[in-house]
Amino acid sequence: MEKQYVVGIDVGGQTTKIGVVDARGDVLAQSVIRSDIYGEDASAYVDALAAAVKAVVADSGKTEEIRGIGVGAPNGNYYTGTIAFAPNLVWAAKGTVDFAKMLSARLEGMPVSLTNDANAAAVGEMTYGVARGMKNFIMITLGTGVGSGIVINGQVVYGFDGFAGELGHTNAVRYNGRACGCGRTGCLEAYCSAMGVARTAREWLESGTEPSLLRDVENITSKDVYDAAKQGDALAIRVFQYTGRILGRSFADFVAFSAPEAIVLFGGLARAKEFLYQPMVEAMDENLLKIWKGKIKIVFSQLKESDAAILGASALAWEL
Amino acid sequence: MEKQYVVGIDVGGQTTKIGVVDARGDVLAQSVIRSDIYGEDASAYVDALAAAVKAVVADSGKTEEIRGIGVGAPNGNYYTGTIAFAPNLVWAAKGTVDFAKMLSARLEGMPVSLTNDANAAAVGEMTYGVARGMKNFIMITLGTGVGSGIVINGQVVYGFDGFAGELGHTNAVRYNGRACGCGRTGCLEAYCSAMGVARTAREWLESGTEPSLLRDVENITSKDVYDAAKQGDALAIRVFQYTGRILGRSFADFVAFSAPEAIVLFGGLARAKEFLYQPMVEAMDENLLKIWKGKIKIVFSQLKESDAAILGASALAWEL
Repeated sequence: MEKQYVVGIDVGGQTTKIGVVDARGDVLAQSVIRSDIYGEDASAYVDALAAAVKAVVADSGKTEEIRGIGVGAPNGNYYTGTIAFAPNLVWAAKGTVDFAKMLSARLEGMPVSLTNDANAAAVGEMTYGVARGMKNFIMITLGTGVGSGIVINGQVVYGFDGFAGELGHTNAVRYNGRACGCGRTGCLEAYCSAMGVARTAREWLESGTEPSLLRDVENITSKDVYDAAKQGDALAIRVFQYTGRILGRSFADFVAFSAPEAIVLFGGLARAKEFLYQPMVEAMDENLLKIWKGKIKIVFSQLKESDAAILGASALAWEL
Repeated sequence: MEKQYVVGIDVGGQTTKIGVVDARGDVLAQSVIRSDIYGEDASAYVDALAAAVKAVVADSGKTEEIRGIGVGAPNGNYYTGTIAFAPNLVWAAKGTVDFAKMLSARLEGMPVSLTNDANAAAVGEMTYGVARGMKNFIMITLGTGVGSGIVINGQVVYGFDGFAGELGHTNAVRYNGRACGCGRTGCLEAYCSAMGVARTAREWLESGTEPSLLRDVENITSKDVYDAAKQGDALAIRVFQYTGRILGRSFADFVAFSAPEAIVLFGGLARAKEFLYQPMVEAMDENLLKIWKGKIKIVFSQLKESDAAILGASALAWEL
C-alpha cells in the first residue's frame, strides 16, 4: 500500500513545530520543541528533533505509513538540504549545517526535503490557503525575522544556488539604517520584524517624552506594542503606521521585480492587520509604477499560524 | 518549405532598429528609423515602421520566407502585445498602444510577438551571448533608461500581467531622491541611465568649483562624461564611481530576490566598463548577504549593441 502520510517540520528561531499530515492537509498529530536551548552544536538540536519526530509519529498511529519529511527552516536550501548562516538559529548562525542528511540519519534513512521556511509557507498557501489558484505571488512572513517565498508561474523561485527569496534583507532604509542581525544595515527585517517593531517603540520612547502605555512595560515586545495600539495608544498606533509604510514601500519594489498578483502576509506580526493594512496599501500604491497602481492585492493568510508552516513543509514531502 | 527567417525590431526612445535574422542568429539585413519624430500619435510611427520593415525585408531578398516578427519595446507586454505608459516613448507615454496588432495589420497579418526591450535582450544573451547555458540571470540594460530582463529556470519572468522586470524603477535612493521620468522619485533609472550620468555630472559641476574638462562642454551627455574620464578627468571618473556604486548596491537587492548566477550588463553606458566595474562589484559585495559574497558574477554583453536587441527580439518570433 502506498504510504499516505507525511511529516512537516517548521524550524523557527525559538520553537520548532512538527506535524503529521494526511493527503487532504489535515494535521493528525503535532508537537513542538525549543530551537534555541541547544547551543551552537547542531547535533544536540537534531537529536532532540529526531526524538520529537518519533514521538509525534507514534502518537499519530501511522508509524508504518510515513512517506517522508518536509522541513521549512530559515536559510534552508532546497538543492543541498543544508541550513547556512541563519542569523536567528544559534546552531546555524556561523556556518553550514547538513540538516537533511543529519535528520534522515537519525530516522532510519527516512527521506527529508528542506527549504526556506517562507518558501514552505508559500507552498502551504498555494495548496490550502488564500493563494490557491494564484500563479504569481510573493509570500512575506512577518515573524522574529522577515522572510519571503516567491512564486512565479506556479513554482517557488530557488535561484541558482537554492537561496533565492531573501527579501527581508533588501534595503528598506539606505542611509543610517539600523544594524540588522545579518551584519548589514538598513534591511527590511531590521524594521518590520517583530523585533523591529519593538525596537521602533523603544527608540521612540527613549527619544521623546510623549505619554504612552508602553512606558510602564519592561522589555517591550511587538505584542506589547500591539496590545497598546488596541487600547488606543497613539505612539503604538504610529509604530504600526511607520512599519506598514516601510513594508508597503518595499512591496512596490518587489512588484517591479516579478509583477505578482498579490502579496500574501503571514506570521505573528500579521495579526496587527488592523493597524498595518491601510498604511501598507497607501505606501505601496504611492510607490508603484502607474501600470500597477490599484492592481496589486495585499492579502493576509487565513491558515492557523502553526498549521501554515507545517502544511507547507509537509507539501514538500509529497514530492519525495 | 518552412519559413527560415524572422524579423527582429528593437524600439528605443530615440531610434528603432530592424533586422532580418536567420536561424543561426546572423543578421542578413538591417535598417534604422527614428522613434521620436512622429509626435504623440502612435499610428504615424507604426506607419513609418511598417514601411521600413517592408524595405529591409525586400533588401534581404527573403520576402516569401519570413516566419514572423519579434519586437522589443519599453513596457512592451508579452501577453497582450501592447505598449503602455512608456515614459521614453512620446507616442506611448500617456496610454496604451495596441502595438502588435497595429503593426501586423500594416503587414498583411504577419504575426507579431512583443516584449519589453530588456526581456528581448535577455533572450538574445541566453541564445547567442554571455548568458548561454545560464538558467538564472538578470539582464540590466543601461541606455536612455535602465531596463531589466529576469530569467529564472531558463524562462523570462513576465509576471501576472506581462510587466515584470522593471528594476530601473526600484528605489535606489529613498530620501530626497531625484525625480524620475516615471513620475516618482529616487528610481535607479534617475541615477544610472545615460541621462542620470549626465545629470550627476551637471549637478556636481554646478554645485562646486572643481576644475573639469566638462566645464567646456555644452549640454553634457553621458558620452561626454565617458570621454572626459578616459582623458583622466577626476570629476568624470568620480561620476562613474558614484553610478557604479548605486548600481552595485541595487544589484545586491536583486540578488536577494532571485539568486541569479550573474548580472549581465548591456547598453550604451555599459561601454564605460573600465570605470564602472570596480565600484559596482565592491558595492554589490558590501551589500550582499554572506551566503552570496564573492559568488555573483557581473558580466558585460559581448554582442554588438544593435545586434543583441535585434537578435533577442527576433528570437521571440521563432516561437510564433
